[in-house]
Amino acid sequence: MLKLNSMPELSSMLELIEKTRDGVALNPVDVERLIHGIATDAFPDYQVAAWLMAAYCNGLSDSEVYALTDAVAKSGSQVTEPLGLVDKHSTGGVGDKTTLIVAPLVTSLGIPLAKMSGRGLGHTGGTLDKLESIPGFRVALSREQIAMQVQQIGLAVVAQTEELAPADKKMYALRDVTGTVDSIPLIAISIMSKKLASGAPNLVLDVKVGNGAFMQSVKRARELAKMMVRIGAYHGRHVRALLTRMDQPLGYAVGNAIEINEARQCLQGGGPADLREEVIALASQMVSMGLDISLEDAQVKVENALYQGMAWRKFEKWIEAQGGDVSAIQQDLPLAPTQKEWVATEDATVVSINTQAIGQVALELGAGRHQLQDPVDPGVGLTCFAKSGAILKKGELIATVYARSQAEAQRAIQQLQQAIVMDETGRRDEGLQSVVMELIASDEART
Amino acid sequence: MLKLNSMPELSSMLELIEKTRDGVALNPVDVERLIHGIATDAFPDYQVAAWLMAAYCNGLSDSEVYALTDAVAKSGSQVTEPLGLVDKHSTGGVGDKTTLIVAPLVTSLGIPLAKMSGRGLGHTGGTLDKLESIPGFRVALSREQIAMQVQQIGLAVVAQTEELAPADKKMYALRDVTGTVDSIPLIAISIMSKKLASGAPNLVLDVKVGNGAFMQSVKRARELAKMMVRIGAYHGRHVRALLTRMDQPLGYAVGNAIEINEARQCLQGGGPADLREEVIALASQMVSMGLDISLEDAQVKVENALYQGMAWRKFEKWIEAQGGDVSAIQQDLPLAPTQKEWVATEDATVVSINTQAIGQVALELGAGRHQLQDPVDPGVGLTCFAKSGAILKKGELIATVYARSQAEAQRAIQQLQQAIVMDETGRRDEGLQSVVMELIASDEART
Repeated sequence: MLKLNSMPELSSMLELIEKTRDGVALNPVDVERLIHGIATDAFPDYQVAAWLMAAYCNGLSDSEVYALTDAVAKSGSQVTEPLGLVDKHSTGGVGDKTTLIVAPLVTSLGIPLAKMSGRGLGHTGGTLDKLESIPGFRVALSREQIAMQVQQIGLAVVAQTEELAPADKKMYALRDVTGTVDSIPLIAISIMSKKLASGAPNLVLDVKVGNGAFMQSVKRARELAKMMVRIGAYHGRHVRALLTRMDQPLGYAVGNAIEINEARQCLQGGGPADLREEVIALASQMVSMGLDISLEDAQVKVENALYQGMAWRKFEKWIEAQGGDVSAIQQDLPLAPTQKEWVATEDATVVSINTQAIGQVALELGAGRHQLQDPVDPGVGLTCFAKSGAILKKGELIATVYARSQAEAQRAIQQLQQAIVMDETGRRDEGLQSVVMELIASDEART
Repeated sequence: MLKLNSMPELSSMLELIEKTRDGVALNPVDVERLIHGIATDAFPDYQVAAWLMAAYCNGLSDSEVYALTDAVAKSGSQVTEPLGLVDKHSTGGVGDKTTLIVAPLVTSLGIPLAKMSGRGLGHTGGTLDKLESIPGFRVALSREQIAMQVQQIGLAVVAQTEELAPADKKMYALRDVTGTVDSIPLIAISIMSKKLASGAPNLVLDVKVGNGAFMQSVKRARELAKMMVRIGAYHGRHVRALLTRMDQPLGYAVGNAIEINEARQCLQGGGPADLREEVIALASQMVSMGLDISLEDAQVKVENALYQGMAWRKFEKWIEAQGGDVSAIQQDLPLAPTQKEWVATEDATVVSINTQAIGQVALELGAGRHQLQDPVDPGVGLTCFAKSGAILKKGELIATVYARSQAEAQRAIQQLQQAIVMDETGRRDEGLQSVVMELIASDEART
């Protein structure tokens, strides 16, 4: 019914849709046309949506993925002289405050880091929201301010300054509403295009696996990690990926100020064991890459920096450099006034934790946002002390919520009680499982 | 990035996309929601496009196809008291003037027929365009005019009066630009929803197969035919489908007035053998269904009506009833002034005919349209005497074009010479193959 002959863009895009629909690989010229068309809005959304679904259903070959990642990276600004030596990216989870700790930890060992972070959306929080719960902290720095800060203290964590990979932004918005988010090649292209554009030569990926993560199975997480490592290698970047467990919140705290408080504990050598384990693992990989030393040597340095206060001092300097109130972070930041506890009424083993539901509880308390323009409440959140396989004794604290009202606190506790499955028939403590599951790297010989 | 939680339609459609994407069958409530949403524009095009591509890639189950066809049929006006007893539908080809002949032929045997026909688009012509090359002929009749005419002479062939199956119209427009046209379930739903809405209890489908048709292989044509017959049976209609060859134009004439001229020859007992064969086959099926008699008896009646002038007299009455100039159709309608012939320079066998290319030649001469609002030229067109496997003697006429200028005629001849592959090494005449290949019917016991 429509006049294809007189609309060159429509018919040009149609050809690309048909190729992907029929499992015929796009060649580099096709890829260039596709991504340029998406970035410049030359193709209508319905054609891009059809292409995305065809790619979802039929997959994409490695050579298509490499070319697409490159084209998406080049669709906007590109950082040609990166300020940082190493970057880190997490696929997102509940209670993931690792950047807050890893960034000053790695920097304290002389490795510059200029990290762009994001805001929370849905059941996962965002590093920028957490940082903004520190009074005065600024996340919007100019490129010049970032450069100066990195030169002075080696570290800046900021909101995205330039438009990195705008084609990805458009594709992501469409994927979100067309059922095409959950495609490994499309996820890999989305993440890696932004990392290629932002320029750091070394990258550690934290690929989360489990019911609070995007990848629910180890198999799919491994597939995604391997693809991202291959993409990096193809484009001359060193990439290592850690698969880490996300079948329970990382650490105990879920929220904003409450996660800053837990990050402080960790930076001072304490905090939950799983969080400390993951922080050390990620930081060791980053330091190993940044200083080009063995992982063992890197880990020794990382543990020293963490346990001897260098990381904490770097954290203070960093918060101060970005306008934060350093006196405020010497103790716990204040939390929401209405607190409610959930205490074990019997001895019980934790059988399973619906991690996404816990993220949802924090979201509904006001710690997260349904849409990007929603405000977040820094003081609300929760601590969840239950860990899968652990035994909780009668009278032991399972969780605390920090809410704006009794009603919200009450509802949150009820939701937590549904999210955490307990067995009171006397199963044994299985011990805490390691949070780091697997390393996938392009330079495995060196690790 | 988008706010699914606050947009119920987006998230409702997303659920349907995800089901089809994952190969989970839509239930009747889902189908209702989907088609209602499409018909009322509640869903954005990009979501419908994603659903169409998911359906294209994963297919649809029979129960989904039945429910979708029903829902699409009910998305607009429905003819509850059909004026005709039998309907006919062709999937479209080059030189297909069968309706012009079959309609008066069947009606002359006492079977009322109220047929809605279409306009040409792309390389295939349309019955309405052909009829309008008769001076005075009107295709836009009101429902009342159609009813009166059917009562008086048993026959009307008109443009669509009401909005039948508007959800199909919207889906088709999107399919056309998203690479999702060529899906057997989607084609079957599109055709059968309109046929269910237009109401005739008996239906003969002419499913064309070959390089001038939508279905290029017998296998796919058979699959489509069987699916349409099943849909009809499920909804209580008698449906028979004939697979017919479209690896060469049907008959010789391709154009508008030129096809009326060939139809006259056929209605007067002459015309090309393949056209006559197909007309008799289609009409016999329609008469067999309409009078509930055996196919053999029906064929006897059909041949009598054709060879004894009843069909031709009904044609004259019909043309007159719709305002056409009956004196004009007593001889050939005038054709375009510039004629050019292609004559065989050697004895040669016709190896193959690119039928779509021949349709394209007629289109470019002005007989068809690239877009629906383009005008068509009634006088231009061509006759192609070459039939696959036949031997053409040196000096024999292969084709004649009727054009508006020498340059256009010259170009058309050159294009025909590329479209028809000849072998001059002395292969034998294979004889003309039967144009009717196969019957697929829901009531096979009766045929």
